[in-house]
Amino acid sequence: MKQVERIGVSLDKKLLSMFDKLIAKRGYQSRSEAIRDLIRQQLSSEQLSNPKAKAVAAVCLVYNHHATKLMEKLIGLQHSHVLQTISAMHIHLDEHNCLEVIVLRGRVGEIEKTAENIVSLKGVKLGRINFVVTEPV
Amino acid sequence: MKQVERIGVSLDKKLLSMFDKLIAKRGYQSRSEAIRDLIRQQLSSEQLSNPKAKAVAAVCLVYNHHATKLMEKLIGLQHSHVLQTISAMHIHLDEHNCLEVIVLRGRVGEIEKTAENIVSLKGVKLGRINFVVTEPV
Amino acid sequence: MKQVERIGVSLDKKLLSMFDKLIAKRGYQSRSEAIRDLIRQQLSSEQLSNPKAKAVAAVCLVYNHHATKLMEKLIGLQHSHVLQTISAMHIHLDEHNCLEVIVLRGRVGEIEKTAENIVSLKGVKLGRINFVVTEPV
Amino acid sequence: MKQVERIGVSLDKKLLSMFDKLIAKRGYQSRSEAIRDLIRQQLSSEQLSNPKAKAVAAVCLVYNHHATKLMEKLIGLQHSHVLQTISAMHIHLDEHNCLEVIVLRGRVGEIEKTAENIVSLKGVKLGRINFVVTEPV
Repeated sequence: MKQVERIGVSLDKKLLSMFDKLIAKRGYQSRSEAIRDLIRQQLSSEQLSNPKAKAVAAVCLVYNHHATKLMEKLIGLQHSHVLQTISAMHIHLDEHNCLEVIVLRGRVGEIEKTAENIVSLKGVKLGRINFVVTEPV
Repeated sequence: MKQVERIGVSLDKKLLSMFDKLIAKRGYQSRSEAIRDLIRQQLSSEQLSNPKAKAVAAVCLVYNHHATKLMEKLIGLQHSHVLQTISAMHIHLDEHNCLEVIVLRGRVGEIEKTAENIVSLKGVKLGRINFVVTEPV
Repeated sequence: MKQVERIGVSLDKKLLSMFDKLIAKRGYQSRSEAIRDLIRQQLSSEQLSNPKAKAVAAVCLVYNHHATKLMEKLIGLQHSHVLQTISAMHIHLDEHNCLEVIVLRGRVGEIEKTAENIVSLKGVKLGRINFVVTEPV
Repeated sequence: MKQVERIGVSLDKKLLSMFDKLIAKRGYQSRSEAIRDLIRQQLSSEQLSNPKAKAVAAVCLVYNHHATKLMEKLIGLQHSHVLQTISAMHIHLDEHNCLEVIVLRGRVGEIEKTAENIVSLKGVKLGRINFVVTEPV
């Protein structure tokens, strides 16, 4: 069973009313849920600023699947690393371009290093990392 | 056949040598490839600043799969929208938490709106969007 | 007199204890103050995503003061624009480089446009914009 | 005398034409200047990802100048720290709010810590840091 605590927060009427409008627009059912999300977000950025933190990341790549041997290299990188590749998803964007989402588990710093190596491969056009901490609260 | 052009760029020796070190570290085979990546990145951020630009996005969610009816709601949202859900990947993070990567196609502004709606659902703990432009150059 | 309201927020013990640690590290005296800051931050990013929002921005530039006529051009840009330049501060970084912080008032989109124009000037090496909404709550 | 080198970059016609459009819009006079700016930007983010790198930062604060003793505390913080405060600029936003831009010199990690301490003060509503590396190339 999760233990829940209740705290009180005091804030200006005007700030509260602007917050209420924002969270209504975003679809929140309650202020508590919206504030919990803000707190989780901040904790998560704090944790991810530590290169040694354990994380899971979705690395998104756009690449030209005609590029010679790129796919072999990508698969090679996924298998050769200290990182654990959990899963990968492949999407056809258009005639030439593919989107690959690779989910990796490892330390923040190692994931960044691998992602940089992947993006530097010839044929890879764009790359972005989306980090998630391993132990979300 | 793609048509390739060659341009000349002049830069200070010191700037060039620092750039060479950086791209070696990242694993680039050539300066051209590294500079093309910088250019693509900038074009892509420019395009994505337009809410009406067509894009593909990987929305990453961490959620508690015990949360009542969350999975039904997530599936519902993926099917009900103006957006086209291309694919989704589900990963078990630990006993309580799942990571879901949902790849959507649509306008930048619409994708942001949907992602906000998804993140606001009770049980969803973290959410992040990774955008990719539809027509990568 | 500002009117203050008090709301209740429920959250897991573990999330709360991690939040308490984070805000202690940052120097907060109370949870309310930390949560108000999170809310203000989110409202401010929301407002700044609208190119028509009124804002104040600090544009930071690093430039080589030996660059021909750069300073005249910078002054010219500050005076010629739809934007109102409020103030500017000039700092000597080293023998060659200056940091100039220019505080502008205007619409978000216009400020971005001006900042891009400034950064594109020959001799300007780096530029960054720090936005602040005009009417902070 | 600065030594300038000239390198060749090959890229697709389409990518080049999109880049040309973008830099024309931003006001660049030459491709070389635009590419140098991209390179400097990337070097600067790389350097700033190291908490020990020497940097100069403009910390922008919005605060309520009616807040009891806030201004004394701000001045105190500026003087008490390992950081060197170079200069500060004060701007009246409206009846209640001030914008203060404080330029600090120090290590990236120390500046972040100080900025967090400043933002956590009661009365400070928003805070953002703009980093600049100490030795721009």
